[in-house]
Amino acid sequence: MSKVFSLSQIKNALKPLDISCAIENGFTAYSRGEVVVPPVGELLFDDPPGDTHIKYGYIKGAEHYVIKIASGFYKNPLVGLPSSSGLMLVFSQKTGALDTILLDEGFLTDVRTAVAGQIAAKYLAPDNVECIGIVGTGIQAHMQLEYLKPVTDCKQVIVWGRSTPNLQMFKSDMEGHGFEIAITTDAKELTSNCNLIVTTTPSEKPVIMADWVKPGTHITAMGSDISKKQELDSKILALADIVVADSLVQCRERGEIYRALQSGDINEAKPIELGAVIATGEKFRQTANQVSIADLTGVAIQDVQIATAVCEALAGLPE
Amino acid sequence: MSKVFSLSQIKNALKPLDISCAIENGFTAYSRGEVVVPPVGELLFDDPPGDTHIKYGYIKGAEHYVIKIASGFYKNPLVGLPSSSGLMLVFSQKTGALDTILLDEGFLTDVRTAVAGQIAAKYLAPDNVECIGIVGTGIQAHMQLEYLKPVTDCKQVIVWGRSTPNLQMFKSDMEGHGFEIAITTDAKELTSNCNLIVTTTPSEKPVIMADWVKPGTHITAMGSDISKKQELDSKILALADIVVADSLVQCRERGEIYRALQSGDINEAKPIELGAVIATGEKFRQTANQVSIADLTGVAIQDVQIATAVCEALAGLPE
Repeated sequence: MSKVFSLSQIKNALKPLDISCAIENGFTAYSRGEVVVPPVGELLFDDPPGDTHIKYGYIKGAEHYVIKIASGFYKNPLVGLPSSSGLMLVFSQKTGALDTILLDEGFLTDVRTAVAGQIAAKYLAPDNVECIGIVGTGIQAHMQLEYLKPVTDCKQVIVWGRSTPNLQMFKSDMEGHGFEIAITTDAKELTSNCNLIVTTTPSEKPVIMADWVKPGTHITAMGSDISKKQELDSKILALADIVVADSLVQCRERGEIYRALQSGDINEAKPIELGAVIATGEKFRQTANQVSIADLTGVAIQDVQIATAVCEALAGLPE
Repeated sequence: MSKVFSLSQIKNALKPLDISCAIENGFTAYSRGEVVVPPVGELLFDDPPGDTHIKYGYIKGAEHYVIKIASGFYKNPLVGLPSSSGLMLVFSQKTGALDTILLDEGFLTDVRTAVAGQIAAKYLAPDNVECIGIVGTGIQAHMQLEYLKPVTDCKQVIVWGRSTPNLQMFKSDMEGHGFEIAITTDAKELTSNCNLIVTTTPSEKPVIMADWVKPGTHITAMGSDISKKQELDSKILALADIVVADSLVQCRERGEIYRALQSGDINEAKPIELGAVIATGEKFRQTANQVSIADLTGVAIQDVQIATAVCEALAGLPE
């Protein structure tokens, strides 16, 4: 019978693993065409509003394939539940048999998403980060900031949100993690003071406008993962010197790049793929004044890499 | 934490349930447009050959949504493993939370597939079934025959296969279930002697040719569920008086109808949907000589109905 692991077992197994390296390798394999990732499966719900994504795929010739299910029901916190949940399933490529069920409740999706933000910042952030801007106050707002620690020494942070209590909660949480946090409900104030910005909201209208962006800024936009979500004014992608997609195929159908293609602010030749950036092995920006954007929609190869790594780490443990 | 149930628990829970009725209701709701069923997710493997399908959806306004994963790795029996495996996942439509994991190992997919064959025969088979033809000797060959019991008294069966040992095994198994089984490796012999035929193979070339089909025959073709599989000569769909699709949308992309559309033997106006046939509430054939075809590619609403029914039956039991 398949092995089933709980969130606490998964968290323990994850701790010693170098997931950043595994996910970097995944992105480069993906961009080299060594990975099979079919289109994202999607279920949308109206009442209450929610979405469920099924992301799945495999590295050709590897031992396993992975199917990941993750949902976001944004009104859950009103009834005391986390907005995201999900699980990851690890199967054998040789027999199709289900090997392992990771009941991660969305945790591994949160981690692999934060790690992708870290990787984007590693290759794209300016050398001299003056102040980090975090747009949003949810789980990813916390995790994206936490996961920036290995790639920048900057501890000055401005966080934007619509709710002052949520901003204050974020401030108190993240000051406990060694950051100095200023709060604002004015996204312009954040944008004009920060040169490394991560947007983490499920917004359907731009939160950051093009006029506000300073030269030399890098923005990672990771909140928009379906076609109707958008966090950045598409003019930002037009003015940016570098636009990076986690998956070119996927970003043509969802996320910031999709919206900028729709509005005609950029064409399909502009974005390059994250795996190709990583493959250069060094900082991708050429000058201090370049503006760069990383549009992260979340690619199944991230799930394949984190689930496989955790599954292998758990293989020796009792259920 | 989510509830996890094993195959034996699932089998026990299933026994008293009227799954045929639940699946009939599912098909009619589907054909009325009350069901959300996105395109099938698919992973294909070359070495060894295999395919994994992800089917998922929900009835609008119901309690749950269901994601089903089923795989077929046709060389597994060579290493002593069943060719099919899988699981079903039942989630809340209100919160997205994973409610129940049914580790059915593909069993519920087998049942809901056999039930669809039963439903097709109920509405489409001739009144006087002279002899049942079963094409193939695998699990579905057994189950399709077993599930015909409630809809025909005929116990005369001819089974076709390529391997005589497999044919003899089928004969001995199904004679234990009250059928009289003749075996053949000549599909023409089967076709010219049977007027209720079920094809259950993963063949990529037609097994049954149009010239062989007797007037008044009904054929349920359930083996072809991806675009490259085909069991019926497309001319059979051309000559048939009635062509029924389990899902019109899906059958335009996979299965016998897809192949007959590709070859130009039929056009998109010919097939009607199984839910519309069921909704008439009576035998759909008008005369004894009509030829009818049911093309079953397997629709997520079948998975939604069987998983939901089993999940509700299990809700009261300890894990």
